[in-house]
Amino acid sequence: MIRLYDYLPSGNGYKVRLLLTQLRIPFERIELDITEGRTRTPEFLRKFPNGRIPAIELDDGRTLFESDAIMTYLAEGTRFLPADRFERAQVLQWMFFEQYSHEPYIAVARFFAMHPDFPDERRAGLPRIMKLGYDALGVMESHLASREWFVGNNYSIADIALYAYTHVADEGGFDLANYPAIRGWLDRVRAQPLHIPITQA
Amino acid sequence: MIRLYDYLPSGNGYKVRLLLTQLRIPFERIELDITEGRTRTPEFLRKFPNGRIPAIELDDGRTLFESDAIMTYLAEGTRFLPADRFERAQVLQWMFFEQYSHEPYIAVARFFAMHPDFPDERRAGLPRIMKLGYDALGVMESHLASREWFVGNNYSIADIALYAYTHVADEGGFDLANYPAIRGWLDRVRAQPLHIPITQA
Repeated sequence: MIRLYDYLPSGNGYKVRLLLTQLRIPFERIELDITEGRTRTPEFLRKFPNGRIPAIELDDGRTLFESDAIMTYLAEGTRFLPADRFERAQVLQWMFFEQYSHEPYIAVARFFAMHPDFPDERRAGLPRIMKLGYDALGVMESHLASREWFVGNNYSIADIALYAYTHVADEGGFDLANYPAIRGWLDRVRAQPLHIPITQA
Repeated sequence: MIRLYDYLPSGNGYKVRLLLTQLRIPFERIELDITEGRTRTPEFLRKFPNGRIPAIELDDGRTLFESDAIMTYLAEGTRFLPADRFERAQVLQWMFFEQYSHEPYIAVARFFAMHPDFPDERRAGLPRIMKLGYDALGVMESHLASREWFVGNNYSIADIALYAYTHVADEGGFDLANYPAIRGWLDRVRAQPLHIPITQA
């Protein structure tokens, strides 16, 4: 059975949890509290040198890290990843956008709000973080204004990648009132078969 | 002919330039100075809503952004992207690592050094940026200690992605003296057929 190294509040972990559930793939979840350094132990680093969750371990011992790489691996050949070459590239485009221009702001603002006493010198830059988070939401809003899903006409791992932290952006202080296209898309993602909330282990 | 929207000093742009050259795919390069806001014009944003280079435009008008998504698209079916499903996921794993844990530190430190007068409030966090840049180099060094290439036994777009800013890390103040495995790998990348330097348009 696939082992998923995870941390329940993590949107990155949630992406993999949600996809595994929607693919009906059984998995064993190993909870590691990142705020207590559980992903920086010598034992974890031997398997996963970048010291981050989510990470998976297959039955034969092979390992993989980076949420979006794991999702691409799991989704291969399923309805969650298009077969068309250009659409596959568009899925990756939005997943790289998420990791570079969205997560570092929207997820980080949420982390600060959830852990007000956790020392992190980036906290001084919160106004810039909020501004860039809203910039990312603006890119999403304009893209979704004329589309149901991020790529093509179907729900894909690009939607899961962007849903993970967008649907809890309010926990980081982001107000989605002026983002109606995003709110409609969040509802469509939530209505997909076998959807689970981020709080479900 | 493929149009590449680019900025010569950009390592992200260089990835695509280098791969197109090594694939012998002709392209037209359009230089846009990011320090003068050339990627934030209404015309550019209409095509590329995230306002960043590199970005490509195909003959039929289809567009794609995010350097690593563009590389995956171009490399499909070539020796630069493995056919094996797990190895493909490993290529993506290292490309996501590069964009999340490497580029925001190693590329940003170089940008600050190249543009000492460019206003950027992240500059106050330079010690943290350098520390996290060295952390990324440490992950690379341990991975390369027993391997010639990042994935499998061949040069791939994972190597191009990580080469782009690592080979100019010294321009951001990083010292690779204690990273012999990285230095050997940089030499192997440079020795690949049809290699071009980052300064070549």
